[in-house]
Amino acid sequence: MKSIITISREFGSGGHSIGMLVAEKLGYHFYGRELVEKVAQISGFSTEFIKESGEYASAKSGILFSLATVGQYETSGMSMHDRLYLIQSKVIEDIAAEGNCVIVGRCADYILRDYKDCLHVFIYADMESRARRIVERYGEQDRPPKKRLEDKDQKRRVYYKNYTGRNWGETHNYDLCLDSSKLGIEACANLIVTACRE
Amino acid sequence: MKSIITISREFGSGGHSIGMLVAEKLGYHFYGRELVEKVAQISGFSTEFIKESGEYASAKSGILFSLATVGQYETSGMSMHDRLYLIQSKVIEDIAAEGNCVIVGRCADYILRDYKDCLHVFIYADMESRARRIVERYGEQDRPPKKRLEDKDQKRRVYYKNYTGRNWGETHNYDLCLDSSKLGIEACANLIVTACRE
Repeated sequence: MKSIITISREFGSGGHSIGMLVAEKLGYHFYGRELVEKVAQISGFSTEFIKESGEYASAKSGILFSLATVGQYETSGMSMHDRLYLIQSKVIEDIAAEGNCVIVGRCADYILRDYKDCLHVFIYADMESRARRIVERYGEQDRPPKKRLEDKDQKRRVYYKNYTGRNWGETHNYDLCLDSSKLGIEACANLIVTACRE
Repeated sequence: MKSIITISREFGSGGHSIGMLVAEKLGYHFYGRELVEKVAQISGFSTEFIKESGEYASAKSGILFSLATVGQYETSGMSMHDRLYLIQSKVIEDIAAEGNCVIVGRCADYILRDYKDCLHVFIYADMESRARRIVERYGEQDRPPKKRLEDKDQKRRVYYKNYTGRNWGETHNYDLCLDSSKLGIEACANLIVTACRE
């Protein structure tokens, strides 16, 4: 039985909802917005800044990839993005130490990559389902849904590469990858719970 | 309940064994070696040629990507690899038409991509587990296991790209991707059965 589940997901794939369902089914603590709030408390950054910039660092900030791996948490002289990433990493490690949790996004799969007690999940979906989902959830915008999705994917890819050195969404980063548009939200949650219990 | 399961897999990931287990659990027909034998019967090619060349076409043969998609099965003037691929596609479609089957390898995921009644699975594993597995199963060779794996991966990647236009092992080609080295062979089989029943 795994006590920590990380969920990485494509925007509009329903990964957040699946994470909530899994947490509910297992009686685990769910960290989505709450993770942002914890980081805000510790860092002093606003939740808005964390939400916007936390996932979308520019490709130029990247010094902490090596710093993070040696466990050094001195943040003076760092960019705001890098400082935020380090604090976020520490918060994620603290959450993991308590166990029985589902953590969505924020490179948690990478930060906790050496934790044995962890199940790493990636949720994806086809473009049509994702487009439908973001319009239902967040409404229409001037930019067409497909363009919004492509922009977000690209930003997540750059952020992830920058801080982890890995390619976002590549199977080998995860234990389990699920297409929510083919399997359905409920079935994805059930599969994660099954994998967690195996 | 899905009646057709395709399993694509990295060499040494245990995908073949997982496929057999799934077929056993569901009472489905398993097509691994038997698929090769069916193709041999129809094509007149030897099973050895099919095993060796069937997965390892050169990057130069690729005319049938377009032919296959329009369902044209005239094979005169084609290279042996291309002819083999077309016959193989036809055999896979015939097997799918009968239903209740597990098909391993041979681009079945792509050939049956538009079949609604299909679950497409990709099995992968970390390098160490795969190296251990191929030495246990096929013995030592002059080339180190890691080199053998890299060569095979590269050949499968080229073959798959050549005949499907897709990138082999990319999540979006499959409904479910499982790391057998993290989850275990038995658990992978159970997850596939669960996904199939959802």
